[in-house]
Amino acid sequence: MRATKISGLAPLFVLFIAGAVSSFEDIEKLRIWPLPAEVSHGGRRMYLSEDFKLVTEGSKYEDPSGILKEGFDRMLAVVRLSHVVSGHRNSSSSGGSALLEGLHVIISSSTDELEYGADESYKLVVASREKPYAQLEAKSVYGALHGLQTFSQLCHFNMKKKVIEILMTPWNITDQPRFSYRGLLIDTSRHYLPLPVMKNVIDSMTYTKLNVLHWHIVDTQSFPLEIPSYPKLWNGAYSPTQRYTFEDAAEIVNYAGRRGIHVLAEIDVPGHALSWGKGYPSLWPSKNCQEPLDVSSDFTFKISARSLSLNLSTWEVTKLKKHRKTEAEAYEYFVLRAQKIASSHGYEIINWEETFNNFGNKLNPKTAWYWSCWESDCGRCIMSNQDKWYLDHIDTPWQMFYANEPFEMIKDEKRQSLVLGGEVCMWGEHIDASDIQQTIWPRAAAAAERLWTPYTKLAENPDKVTTRLAHFRCLLNERGVAAAPLVGGGRVAPFEPGSCLAQ
Amino acid sequence: MRATKISGLAPLFVLFIAGAVSSFEDIEKLRIWPLPAEVSHGGRRMYLSEDFKLVTEGSKYEDPSGILKEGFDRMLAVVRLSHVVSGHRNSSSSGGSALLEGLHVIISSSTDELEYGADESYKLVVASREKPYAQLEAKSVYGALHGLQTFSQLCHFNMKKKVIEILMTPWNITDQPRFSYRGLLIDTSRHYLPLPVMKNVIDSMTYTKLNVLHWHIVDTQSFPLEIPSYPKLWNGAYSPTQRYTFEDAAEIVNYAGRRGIHVLAEIDVPGHALSWGKGYPSLWPSKNCQEPLDVSSDFTFKISARSLSLNLSTWEVTKLKKHRKTEAEAYEYFVLRAQKIASSHGYEIINWEETFNNFGNKLNPKTAWYWSCWESDCGRCIMSNQDKWYLDHIDTPWQMFYANEPFEMIKDEKRQSLVLGGEVCMWGEHIDASDIQQTIWPRAAAAAERLWTPYTKLAENPDKVTTRLAHFRCLLNERGVAAAPLVGGGRVAPFEPGSCLAQ
Repeated sequence: MRATKISGLAPLFVLFIAGAVSSFEDIEKLRIWPLPAEVSHGGRRMYLSEDFKLVTEGSKYEDPSGILKEGFDRMLAVVRLSHVVSGHRNSSSSGGSALLEGLHVIISSSTDELEYGADESYKLVVASREKPYAQLEAKSVYGALHGLQTFSQLCHFNMKKKVIEILMTPWNITDQPRFSYRGLLIDTSRHYLPLPVMKNVIDSMTYTKLNVLHWHIVDTQSFPLEIPSYPKLWNGAYSPTQRYTFEDAAEIVNYAGRRGIHVLAEIDVPGHALSWGKGYPSLWPSKNCQEPLDVSSDFTFKISARSLSLNLSTWEVTKLKKHRKTEAEAYEYFVLRAQKIASSHGYEIINWEETFNNFGNKLNPKTAWYWSCWESDCGRCIMSNQDKWYLDHIDTPWQMFYANEPFEMIKDEKRQSLVLGGEVCMWGEHIDASDIQQTIWPRAAAAAERLWTPYTKLAENPDKVTTRLAHFRCLLNERGVAAAPLVGGGRVAPFEPGSCLAQ
Repeated sequence: MRATKISGLAPLFVLFIAGAVSSFEDIEKLRIWPLPAEVSHGGRRMYLSEDFKLVTEGSKYEDPSGILKEGFDRMLAVVRLSHVVSGHRNSSSSGGSALLEGLHVIISSSTDELEYGADESYKLVVASREKPYAQLEAKSVYGALHGLQTFSQLCHFNMKKKVIEILMTPWNITDQPRFSYRGLLIDTSRHYLPLPVMKNVIDSMTYTKLNVLHWHIVDTQSFPLEIPSYPKLWNGAYSPTQRYTFEDAAEIVNYAGRRGIHVLAEIDVPGHALSWGKGYPSLWPSKNCQEPLDVSSDFTFKISARSLSLNLSTWEVTKLKKHRKTEAEAYEYFVLRAQKIASSHGYEIINWEETFNNFGNKLNPKTAWYWSCWESDCGRCIMSNQDKWYLDHIDTPWQMFYANEPFEMIKDEKRQSLVLGGEVCMWGEHIDASDIQQTIWPRAAAAAERLWTPYTKLAENPDKVTTRLAHFRCLLNERGVAAAPLVGGGRVAPFEPGSCLAQ
């Protein structure tokens, strides 16, 4: 809808036309992913000045460690990545064109501590003619980073004038996530993932506003993490260089944190832990039984506790799998004791659902669960059902990721309020640096919209968002993310020549 | 072999031990890809100073546009990419350890013009105890860039000390390519490749010392390039944004050029040119016959000439395909006339071999050919046979790429001297931003060694270089290049959990 000036009727007409985007067809023209909570736009055009500035007057937030400035610079770099901006737009040359001189960011909280559950909302206005600055308001710097992300998706390259422009201004966007936990699991035990690959994954997460990187670090096959107090543990790595030093792990957490992403570091015990014994064979019950670890041994608890005390992140996951039914009691004993240890280090606890299914009533009542169980009243839950949200299931098409609704089976409002969010899982049996990004994207983006966008704005029929998701997939490609075609399941090669938008 | 000090015998013993690497087993421990012409090493270790410097005293080359400095900075960035360098090594803290303070680069030519056939040789010495600087000598800055690349592959991260080290010093490397034309073809007509993707490909080419990017820009399916004098031509693109502005194309050429890579821009006429008519329908012979272009029309030649005059690079390829036998004469007429036009713009000419097979004796005698024909005396040739060097044939394993020897069927020395080199081809029917790099690598690397390394140093049985190629593939992953596992053909997903080095 365009805003037009009609003498004598202008105020009324403008109010009438430049209203909220309400029809589904309008939404689908918006090309923003995930869809914001509330969006309205006009019909004008503005160009970004080649000296596009960040202005923070009036902001309580002083950007002590440069998180905002870096985010702003990254945003500008990414909108200028896919074509050379050779046209000139600045205050002297703009003439009659509407020039956007910069972005005015106002953040009300002065802290940059990344706390789970903190306010991620933002308001973005781009922009009125009187004010040649876009306006971004947020409670926290992490809300502001989400606002910058949305702003970047409004920017387009004008192929004729060769400048960055924003169409359909003025934009008025008010946005906040539906769920606070929006996660992606990656697995560095089945295949080692070098640091640049992990950073590429983290950057691509920010494009879809995912905010939890669940790092499944070790498992049966390899133990690639340095634990300073038990230096032989990482002898369980595939090779000396396929490992993360303590500083590498801290770098990952820091890189993610500065982008508003929590890192949930997961270390499995006592099952899935064969690789621990490569450096410390006494952890194995015997030479012939190397899994699970020996839960009758205090050493097992000592080493688990030390691993948990690495203090990489706020949450730790104790993933506990049952070995055999005859050891049910040993399993329960281990889990309860491990929970106590974790709790004593100040951690929140998340378990996989098997523990709930087996002895849920004995667990720490504050436990949250990775959950695919619909019927049980399991308290705080994070949806992660393998039939729909496991990315390694490459037969699962993006439509199923999009349609996977946490509240589909939960009608009770109180139980709904206990759903923290959800997580897509990129298990690593067939995933390494060569194919991880095309297996994650764009299907994880489909899930990301399910977790961010208000329920009423989501499409009932996923096929209705095909065009918008295709545009987003092509945007990912333009940003150097190897997102696969939409057609087919996961990581299918394009099956014929054609436009990115049609594949 | 280690260099050891034995009093009274030191000079003789050192000479004896630190000799040239001669046995194949020694070569395979070197972990350098492609293998240099001459290599010797010792048994010591040096650490890179955290203030590792570039020094150019005595060099005739003044680095007018920063090509050397940028190359040096890129080299340092890439060796520090995969782990956090948290240990400290500088002149004050090195104690007894051998510290490498920097790299002394001496270049004898003052020009930085990238000319085909220019000297790409270099000499690298790392380093004697007396001189805490590695020494790199080259005739041209592009030879020096190759030397920097080799230097980067000597660098390893010490997981214990957490610094960059070089093992087996002193190194003495003398190197130059076997062939001057070492190419990779990419195809941006079947699928548009965004600029960041092309830059990633160019960077990965430098790691294997490939030096020609054969850019197959347009074809039947799309015309994505801006031709300023015929602005409607790029209406044949898939969409407005899936296009390269003139500045984008110049940026690609510049980005590659600063890395020592020639860009060979290819525009096919009169066949494979349906997309031209989207903007200029009069180029089509009729509504029902849209390919090839109408060779009876002067407009066809005018528009072809203008396209060739873009001056993006020194060479242009006129790829001419026959449509039907009844038009053989029209085809020959077009090719000869097009060659004249190209020649008049100062271009060298390369044709695909069909023209040679059809009317080779009438062609410009300076023509070179993309060639898979073994028997004919076709003059200057660039090997590019589809049964072994087409990367889109994903059933072709890396061993076949490695083993494809230009001189296998040519025993006559004079004909051997006319072989300029070779090129692997990444045709784009099933290739886009999501899967291009895992389809190119590591198989293109196998071909790159065939084109760089002296014939006598190549393995007769490709399986002998498996370990060294696996290490190189993992190095590519650590540098953010999505190189696929070695096992299987092209772009196979890893089929089980395991070490990068074993897949």
